[in-house]
Amino acid sequence: MKNFDINEDPHRRYNPLINEWVLVSPHRAKRPWQGQNEPLITETLPKYDPTCYLCPDNVRANGVNNPKYDGCFVFENDFAAMKQDEIMYEDDIRQTFFKAKPERGISRVVCFSPRHDLTLPEMSISGIENIIRTWQKEYTDLGAIKYINHVQIFENKGSVMGCSNPHPHGQIWAQSSLPTQVEKTQKSLKDYYSRNQKSLLGDYLKAELNKEDRIVIENDHFVALVPFWAIWPYETMIISKRHFGRITDFTAEETTSFAKILKQLTIKYDNLFNTSFPYSSGIHQAPTDGNEHEEWHFHMHFYPPLLRSATIKKFMVGYEMMGESQRDITPEKSAAILRELPDVHYKSETK
Amino acid sequence: MKNFDINEDPHRRYNPLINEWVLVSPHRAKRPWQGQNEPLITETLPKYDPTCYLCPDNVRANGVNNPKYDGCFVFENDFAAMKQDEIMYEDDIRQTFFKAKPERGISRVVCFSPRHDLTLPEMSISGIENIIRTWQKEYTDLGAIKYINHVQIFENKGSVMGCSNPHPHGQIWAQSSLPTQVEKTQKSLKDYYSRNQKSLLGDYLKAELNKEDRIVIENDHFVALVPFWAIWPYETMIISKRHFGRITDFTAEETTSFAKILKQLTIKYDNLFNTSFPYSSGIHQAPTDGNEHEEWHFHMHFYPPLLRSATIKKFMVGYEMMGESQRDITPEKSAAILRELPDVHYKSETK
Ligand SMILES: O=P(O)(O)O[C@H]1O[C@H](CO)[C@@H](O)[C@H](O)[C@H]1O
Ligand SMILES: O=P(O)(O)O[C@H]1O[C@H](CO)[C@@H](O)[C@H](O)[C@H]1O
Repeated sequence: MKNFDINEDPHRRYNPLINEWVLVSPHRAKRPWQGQNEPLITETLPKYDPTCYLCPDNVRANGVNNPKYDGCFVFENDFAAMKQDEIMYEDDIRQTFFKAKPERGISRVVCFSPRHDLTLPEMSISGIENIIRTWQKEYTDLGAIKYINHVQIFENKGSVMGCSNPHPHGQIWAQSSLPTQVEKTQKSLKDYYSRNQKSLLGDYLKAELNKEDRIVIENDHFVALVPFWAIWPYETMIISKRHFGRITDFTAEETTSFAKILKQLTIKYDNLFNTSFPYSSGIHQAPTDGNEHEEWHFHMHFYPPLLRSATIKKFMVGYEMMGESQRDITPEKSAAILRELPDVHYKSETK
Repeated sequence: MKNFDINEDPHRRYNPLINEWVLVSPHRAKRPWQGQNEPLITETLPKYDPTCYLCPDNVRANGVNNPKYDGCFVFENDFAAMKQDEIMYEDDIRQTFFKAKPERGISRVVCFSPRHDLTLPEMSISGIENIIRTWQKEYTDLGAIKYINHVQIFENKGSVMGCSNPHPHGQIWAQSSLPTQVEKTQKSLKDYYSRNQKSLLGDYLKAELNKEDRIVIENDHFVALVPFWAIWPYETMIISKRHFGRITDFTAEETTSFAKILKQLTIKYDNLFNTSFPYSSGIHQAPTDGNEHEEWHFHMHFYPPLLRSATIKKFMVGYEMMGESQRDITPEKSAAILRELPDVHYKSETK
């Protein structure tokens, strides 16, 4: 009988953040692909697009005129998934099968800059610091609203990630309940914290820095790594070295370091397949419910779908939906590939 | 203050099968769409395609010749996600962050018929009964292998669901562990059964038949409905009326009824947008670990991505990945739309 080789043999890995497993099939990367290819987006975007509803001074779908903004521009989503109205309702605790509760919330759009063509990897550090300060302000302002207990900051980048406008922007959905994934994460962080009086992600980060093989980028205050339990081929997580729970806890140095690691990571992503790399990213941090939440440890997830090229993605479908997430390349291999990619954007090299 | 109206107000619903919530935004269906459209597949497929590696008598990627099969044809996946080799390994229970275990398994492909162009809704009832008998045989044979404790039968239909060959086929991934989603389901079924000595899905089905508004199809032995907690726009679940745990428990009448409801449901799906409707489907049933599993109740999930037309799908991205699943149309509305669709396939009407 052969000894277990994690680099070669099919296996499952455990994700202690959400208490789920992932199936890893290292040998499967060689599989030929005859399936759907994503459209390759090669057009160069203009700095300003008169038909874009996010560009400065343009008119949005609802008839409102955008200001001639500089820096970031934040507005309420015209087609929000939640509403602010307070709804009267009585909880029926006897319900087993038909449990439903009204949910209040606010959705905002954050345009990263006036430039229609400037994605994170191509922005200046001060431009990205500006986005971080905007996120801090929104987290504070939205979090201060009495019924808002959670503020989800995220970005869908690329049409393959359901993004309907290429003008670089993110979103913020703030709401009264803790969303499912955040609740799972909080439970794990809390369990660990009450058992060890230490941060789960802090200890995990130390263990990873020891091992080195899943680290993509390390700077003074943050580390970008491919988690041991990553499900997407080039999934990464940025974790703060210091143990704090909120983006508003950043020092001035941490703000700059975070801007730098965001830029460096997204440059590597773009350089992987010489394309504007699609992903969904999102920040997980303490709820805004007024409690201390010492268990929380600031981190940001990147879930990019591409697997082998700018047009071939990983499909999380039948087995993954009915059974569990499955990946075809080991996290260690993905990390090594990302780590070795240049820190200069492929477009600026040819300029 | 307004009273809660589940048909109008944003709310969350609880899924007792996997203990998760979904965000429902009934008012959001009106949102305009400027994002990615899926390619519209309009080509008519030939009955036989000489370049298809699933058609009878053709050669597969690995050089093997398919038999000149009739009915279903089952073979081992040439690029399986798991392997059968027994791997030596010692469990390190002190591991918190780097938990990994080798996983053994077998992947098979099930061609539904020799016909390259015949999807489930266009097949005869006896042709579908033949598939069901094949699933039964595979569940029995694979389940009888000592180290196989779970047999996942599923289908990825359509290129948008990562299906790389249009020749109608499904897959079976059999393995030693219970996959994450199945484990969650089993936990809920078990908790309910030990508390009530009754089947969770049996009781749920009774409650749904009482309410009527989420029922899509009902026949003597099975019901197809849009679950109260559905996440995909036109998600459905087929539940057996009788409480049993395995596809091998079907009576002869149940086999025919199941074939009929499969055909009728997939006809409605095709008729929704006059297209060969993409989905991932999968059967959830008792593990093959040798235990009785009285808590299990046979059911089949359909997760179709389309939202508004043959080319516009729902993207489960940023908020959904970081926060929780979100839907733009109520399950009741989806069920009503599906229910009212004709039971005759749109293609046969124009013939
Ligand atoms: O096995 P196939 O059809 O080549 O592959 C498809 O189904 C598998 C099982 O759901 C997925 O893991 C793959 O990502 C998908 O492309
Ligand atoms: O709000 P957008 O960008 O129009 O929409 C996109 O992001 C949302 C939040 O992840 C998703 O619910 C939508 O399915 C997706 O298309």
